Amino acid sequence: MTTNEKALLLHEQWGGKIETISKCSIKSKEDLALAYTPGVAEPCKVIAKEKEASYRYTIKSNTVAVVSDGSAVLGLGNIGPYAAMPVMEGKAALFKEFGGVNAFPICLDTQDTEEIINTIVHIAPAFGGINLEDISAPRCFEIEERLKNLLDIPVFHDDQHGTAIVVLAGIINALKVTKRKKESCKIVINGAGSAGIAITKLLLNYGFPSIIMCDKSGILSSSSKDLNWMQKEMMTVTNLENQTGTLADALKGADIFVGVSAPNIVTEEMVRSMNEDAILFAMANPVPEIMPDIAKKAGARIVGTGRSDFPNQINNVVAFPGIFKGALEGRATQITEEMKLAAAEAIANLVSEEELKEDNIMPQPFDPKVVKAVSQAVKKYIN
Amino acid sequence: MTTNEKALLLHEQWGGKIETISKCSIKSKEDLALAYTPGVAEPCKVIAKEKEASYRYTIKSNTVAVVSDGSAVLGLGNIGPYAAMPVMEGKAALFKEFGGVNAFPICLDTQDTEEIINTIVHIAPAFGGINLEDISAPRCFEIEERLKNLLDIPVFHDDQHGTAIVVLAGIINALKVTKRKKESCKIVINGAGSAGIAITKLLLNYGFPSIIMCDKSGILSSSSKDLNWMQKEMMTVTNLENQTGTLADALKGADIFVGVSAPNIVTEEMVRSMNEDAILFAMANPVPEIMPDIAKKAGARIVGTGRSDFPNQINNVVAFPGIFKGALEGRATQITEEMKLAAAEAIANLVSEEELKEDNIMPQPFDPKVVKAVSQAVKKYIN
Repeated sequence: MTTNEKALLLHEQWGGKIETISKCSIKSKEDLALAYTPGVAEPCKVIAKEKEASYRYTIKSNTVAVVSDGSAVLGLGNIGPYAAMPVMEGKAALFKEFGGVNAFPICLDTQDTEEIINTIVHIAPAFGGINLEDISAPRCFEIEERLKNLLDIPVFHDDQHGTAIVVLAGIINALKVTKRKKESCKIVINGAGSAGIAITKLLLNYGFPSIIMCDKSGILSSSSKDLNWMQKEMMTVTNLENQTGTLADALKGADIFVGVSAPNIVTEEMVRSMNEDAILFAMANPVPEIMPDIAKKAGARIVGTGRSDFPNQINNVVAFPGIFKGALEGRATQITEEMKLAAAEAIANLVSEEELKEDNIMPQPFDPKVVKAVSQAVKKYIN
Repeated sequence: MTTNEKALLLHEQWGGKIETISKCSIKSKEDLALAYTPGVAEPCKVIAKEKEASYRYTIKSNTVAVVSDGSAVLGLGNIGPYAAMPVMEGKAALFKEFGGVNAFPICLDTQDTEEIINTIVHIAPAFGGINLEDISAPRCFEIEERLKNLLDIPVFHDDQHGTAIVVLAGIINALKVTKRKKESCKIVINGAGSAGIAITKLLLNYGFPSIIMCDKSGILSSSSKDLNWMQKEMMTVTNLENQTGTLADALKGADIFVGVSAPNIVTEEMVRSMNEDAILFAMANPVPEIMPDIAKKAGARIVGTGRSDFPNQINNVVAFPGIFKGALEGRATQITEEMKLAAAEAIANLVSEEELKEDNIMPQPFDPKVVKAVSQAVKKYIN
C-alpha cells in the first residue's frame, strides 16, 4: 500500500482527526451542579462584569481557530471549505500534539472578503488566537490586516508568516555554513503569492538589502502587467534597479534562491549561473523547483525543500505551534515583526555549531526543544 | 465552601471545560506524512469531487456547534458572548459525556439576526448539526426557521425543543400516574418566551386540545397588547375561547400548570383552584414558581422542577445528547416534529410501570439507557 492509499484508509478509520473532550468528569448530580447549572452561573457573572476574566474561566486562554475558505489549499488550489477540512483538522491536531494548544477547524462556506472578516469577528469570543490558512492572495493580505485592526487577539496567516519564519531560520543557518554576511547577499524569490511576498518582507526586515521577486512571467518590475495591489507595493522595496527579464536572468549572480512556486522550473544551467556556494530552498510540494541532487551537481552548496525525505526540510511545523503557544501564554494581542524575527533566530539557534552543516541547517520538528525555544522567543517581545 | 464558590474555583482550575485532542498520534515523519502533508491531500481530493464524503473523512459526522449570542442565558439574561462561554462549554462537555458527540462552543459577538444567520451558515461545513442556545425570543424563532431552510444539517434550538420534549415526557408519565386522558386536560403555560411557546406547540402537536398561555401581564388573548409576531401566531391555536384575566383566573379548573417564568408566582390558593390531582411543572431556576412542598400541601398531586435536589427533575440533559446522537448517526437533515414526539415518548417509557409513581416520573439523567433510547427513537423517523 502506498502512503497515499494508507492515508486515505486511515482518514476513514479516524473519521475526523480531532475530537473534543470534557476536562471535567460529569458522573453525578454534584458534578452536574458544578460544571453546569447552577454552578456555572458564577464564572458567567464574573465575566459579565469583567470580560478579561474569560481568559481565567474559559477555553479562550489556550484555544486557536484554524480558519480557511479553502481557496488555496496546499498544491490542490481552490477546493472549497468541505475539501479543506482534512487539512485544517490536521493543523488542529498538530497544534495540540506539538504545542499543547487547543485548535478547532473553521472552514468557511464563503470566499467573499467582507463575509470572511465579519464571520471571524463574530466567532472570536471563544478563541485566544486566529490562525488563517490556505486563503488565496491577494485577499489574504486584506483579511489579515483588517482582522488585526478589528480584534484584540493575535491573527496570523501561517502560509505567509509561518513560511517566512522557517525560511529565514534556514537562511540564517545557511549563511553561517557558507560564512556569508546578509549585507552582501542577492536573493531571488520565485512565486509572488502569499508565501513569496511574506518571505520577501521578512527577509527585508531582517536586513537583506537586495531581493528580486519573480513569478510565471519572469522578474516582477514596475513595468510588469497585472500586478495586484500588494505586488505593486512590493515593487517599492524590491528590485530597486528595476531589472526585467526571466527567472534565469534574475538568478545570474544571485546568492540565494527561494522557490514557493512550481515543480522543475530551475535548471542546472540556472544554478551554475548563480554565485559560488549558492543556497537554494526549492519548496514546491511535492516536487521541488529542482531536485536536490541535480542542484548539488550543478554547484549548489546548500539545498532545502519542503519534503521530509530530503535533508533540510523547511517545514512550518517548527514555527506555528510555538508562535501561538508563546502568544497565548504571554497574552499577546498581535504577532509582531519582532516576534517573527526572534522566532526565526530561535529556530536557527536550535541547531548547535557542532551539528550545523550543509545537510543539517534545520532543527528536527519532533524535538520538544523547538516549541519551547520558539514560544520563549515570542514571549520576550510581548509588551 | 458553597457549591457556587466551589464551582468558581473549579472553573478557574479547569481553565475551560473542554479541550480538543488529536485522534492520531503524530510522533514521527511517517505519522506526519499520513495525517498531514502529503497524505492529507487524498481525502481532500475525494471530498472536492463529492462533498458528501466529508461525512466519511472529517469530524462533520459527529460534531455539533453549540451556538449562542449570550442574549438570554439561563436566569442571567443578556450577558453577552464572553460571559455565555462557560454555559456553552458546559453544554459541549455534556454532549460528549452523555452522547459521545463532539461539540464546540461558538459564542457570537453580534445580536443582529442577519449577522447571526450569515455567520452560522458560513461556519457550517465543519459541523453535522447546530445546537442553538440561549438566544432571546422572538429572534430565536426566525433564526432557527431561516437556518433550517438554508442548511442541510439539523438545526435545533434546545431552549425551545429540548425543554418541550422533556416537559412532554414528564406530562405523559404524570397522566399515567393520575390516570387521565390528554383529551380532557386543560393546560396553562406560564411564560411566553422561547421555551413556553415551544412547549405549547409540542403539546398541541401531541394532541392536548386546550392550552392557555400566560405571561407577566396575565392571560395572552387576541386583545393582549405588545405581542410579538410569534405570540400573535400562537393566539390562533391557543386560548380558543379568548379568555382574559390573570394567571390565577387561568388556573381555575386547570389540570396542568407548566411554568418557565419567575420564582414564587404561583400561590397555594391558585393550586387549590385547579382540578383534582393537579400536575405542576414549576421550572423557574433556581427558585421555582412554587416550592414543591407548598404545592403538594395545597393539593397538587405531581410536582416537577428544574432542580436536581427535588424529585421529578425536568432536565434537558435527558433529551439533547440523544437527539443529536440519533440525528448524526442517521444523517438526519432536520429534527422533525415526529422525532421530538418520539423522543418524548422514549424518555417517558424509560420509567417502567413498577418504578412510575408521583415522585418518580422522569428517568435519571445518568442512566446510559436514556441516550440510547432517545437516539433510537429519533433514528426511526429519519427518511
